[in-house]
Amino acid sequence: MSQVRPEHDLAAYMRGLGQRAREAARYMASADAGAKNAALLAIADHIEHSRETLAGANHQDMEVGRGRGLDSALLDRLELTDERISAMAEGLRQIVALPDPVGSVSEMNYRPSGIQVGRMRVPLGVIGIVYESRPNVTADAAGLCLKSGNAAILRGGSEAIHSNLAIAECIAHALAENEFPGDAVQVVEITDRDAVGALLRMPEFVDVIIPRGGKGLIERISRESAIPVIKHLHGVCHVFVDEDADFDKAVAVAFNAKTQRYGTCNTMETLLVAEPVAKSVLGVLAPMFLDAGVELRGCARTTQIIPEASSASEEDWSTEYLAPILSIRVVTDLDAAIDHIHRYGSQHTDAIITDNIVKARRFLTAVDSSSVMVNASTRFADGFEYGLGAEIGISTDKLHARGPVGLEGLTSQKFIVVGDGHIRK
Amino acid sequence: MSQVRPEHDLAAYMRGLGQRAREAARYMASADAGAKNAALLAIADHIEHSRETLAGANHQDMEVGRGRGLDSALLDRLELTDERISAMAEGLRQIVALPDPVGSVSEMNYRPSGIQVGRMRVPLGVIGIVYESRPNVTADAAGLCLKSGNAAILRGGSEAIHSNLAIAECIAHALAENEFPGDAVQVVEITDRDAVGALLRMPEFVDVIIPRGGKGLIERISRESAIPVIKHLHGVCHVFVDEDADFDKAVAVAFNAKTQRYGTCNTMETLLVAEPVAKSVLGVLAPMFLDAGVELRGCARTTQIIPEASSASEEDWSTEYLAPILSIRVVTDLDAAIDHIHRYGSQHTDAIITDNIVKARRFLTAVDSSSVMVNASTRFADGFEYGLGAEIGISTDKLHARGPVGLEGLTSQKFIVVGDGHIRK
Repeated sequence: MSQVRPEHDLAAYMRGLGQRAREAARYMASADAGAKNAALLAIADHIEHSRETLAGANHQDMEVGRGRGLDSALLDRLELTDERISAMAEGLRQIVALPDPVGSVSEMNYRPSGIQVGRMRVPLGVIGIVYESRPNVTADAAGLCLKSGNAAILRGGSEAIHSNLAIAECIAHALAENEFPGDAVQVVEITDRDAVGALLRMPEFVDVIIPRGGKGLIERISRESAIPVIKHLHGVCHVFVDEDADFDKAVAVAFNAKTQRYGTCNTMETLLVAEPVAKSVLGVLAPMFLDAGVELRGCARTTQIIPEASSASEEDWSTEYLAPILSIRVVTDLDAAIDHIHRYGSQHTDAIITDNIVKARRFLTAVDSSSVMVNASTRFADGFEYGLGAEIGISTDKLHARGPVGLEGLTSQKFIVVGDGHIRK
Repeated sequence: MSQVRPEHDLAAYMRGLGQRAREAARYMASADAGAKNAALLAIADHIEHSRETLAGANHQDMEVGRGRGLDSALLDRLELTDERISAMAEGLRQIVALPDPVGSVSEMNYRPSGIQVGRMRVPLGVIGIVYESRPNVTADAAGLCLKSGNAAILRGGSEAIHSNLAIAECIAHALAENEFPGDAVQVVEITDRDAVGALLRMPEFVDVIIPRGGKGLIERISRESAIPVIKHLHGVCHVFVDEDADFDKAVAVAFNAKTQRYGTCNTMETLLVAEPVAKSVLGVLAPMFLDAGVELRGCARTTQIIPEASSASEEDWSTEYLAPILSIRVVTDLDAAIDHIHRYGSQHTDAIITDNIVKARRFLTAVDSSSVMVNASTRFADGFEYGLGAEIGISTDKLHARGPVGLEGLTSQKFIVVGDGHIRK
């Protein structure tokens, strides 16, 4: 990739990006919603009008990727088809339709002193996004950051560099036409791995890092970053079928949570079933899963009920398969289910199926995950499904953002105080 | 302090604290408000009934401190007078009166899919507090952490170790009587500086670190911590007197913001005055400040108007004096004032004095500080004044908490979803 590698020293190059992003962020913070929306629509238009250029750049990446022997799953994620180009533009138009969180003031209350106190929503500043393969993230992330009044530094995978730079061109044109600073969205041109390291060590210029990609990438970033990271490592999601569950709903939700899509972080990886209903529930679910090609691994009690199931190892309980494999455990009761989730879960998404409100209430309170559900498939844990409009990621951390992170997660709140010459006594 | 130093290895000791705190946190998260309040009231009672023990332990600390030649300001902060003991108990009773944030559910909304989605407030988990000299922080911090459903690891200064351990005794008795795990509040017994280092390197056991103390302490903790830190480094607060300010209010607020207390982080350190009103405003304010014993340092224009003022150096503009010293700059207009605050401020608290709503609106939006004020003294930036009830600290960061941090700042929100057997299509 030497042709896209700037000649100057890497650290100086990254610091330059950071400084310019910091300046652009100040401008973006005061930009009004109308102007930001106009720029987003212009990016969408440029993307649609640059189909051939984007396809050409993507073709280059695909050729290089094939030459480097990338596997088919990676090549699939890398490919910019005509539909995917349209989807990028459509995604930006959907962001335009979302309300602008910036400047929104929560209720102002009079205090005994006579001052009025409220909170105003403000952008975070500069967001660093580190991602892999999918070039559409360049457009999505730029859209969410711009709409929330932030500047973005985007660092995609080396395998997608030509596609990402072509999308960056569209963004740059749209920003310029709308009199926004071009530095509001910068794509890192250096494909060297060390560029990520440099990005993670600029807390004076970057306010938060959002990694999107595999567990390896996210672990590395969490370990190395001197900047707060919004992330989730993995999703070991559970569905617990309580003895007071409606039978048909339990079967439908458990089947959906596993089979609707295998490769997503909100897919169920472990099914917990209360002993009193284990035989009847698993008796119906097991053939459904087996017919769908799902490999079953279970506890001793499960393998008694399902002869086709193999024995789950201790490691299975904390494994995110991202594949048609399911671990199943029969538990004595609600408390045992909660204990299992506490011990093996990843604090992503966990659901109980029950008609008993007391148990539902206890599950909602006691399970410490970013999404906790009653009688619904874990697959609903998603920014669109929750009404956030779009998500830049999911957080299983507790500070700042928890669960799907949308526009609001890219903002903060400052206190505002209005008085009439009030002084402190 | 060898008598309070556990015999075992420091890292193992700290990890033991962490593990036990993590377990206690799980219990605390499900504790109901009534039980938590009962424990807080019991701590208050034990503190009041242990006046003699507390005074005795504090006497030991004071003796050691005098022997070590601590300065009088430090000894003053260290002292537990009878009023201060009463104030600790009273502070805990005030925390009892605050609403419990935990479990509070924001509006549940139906989504097009039919699921209901809302957010439930949850504790952060384990809070590490690192503080200096004032022993009352032990009671305050324990109270706020317990009320918000968190476990606390408290690491006070070595100079206050006997006082802190005596307060910890009161807390331990109250927790035991109310059937709470004693590990919900642990005071680090090791006074070795390395104990702080070990605490900052246990992200698996500690969710957030809150340092309270001088700039040196906070800088060190920010630099070393592998755990997110809620902090503010310093407060370089500004009052800008706009040309459309009400004259009397401008004078009253500027005087109050500087002189009501000199040593607090929300005290004004720099006064900015718009050129058209500089002569009249400074003409009245200068003798008031000088009479109060405030040393004035100004820009060239200021020293023309106030002959008693010395010339401010570049360094003055970014200095937190915490003393009767004020820097003054005459600026051309609102934009120049905003630029000055952007360049030299600490994002703590900044105020404009104006009767012009257009300028007030612009100042509120453009100044990127944790508290932004119109026609009010910067001294109002405080958890009590804002109605948060009590504060564990002030944050000038943007992620998670910004401004005074009360009970809500010690919590997070998880998503909760309720359906009726809903599956993702």
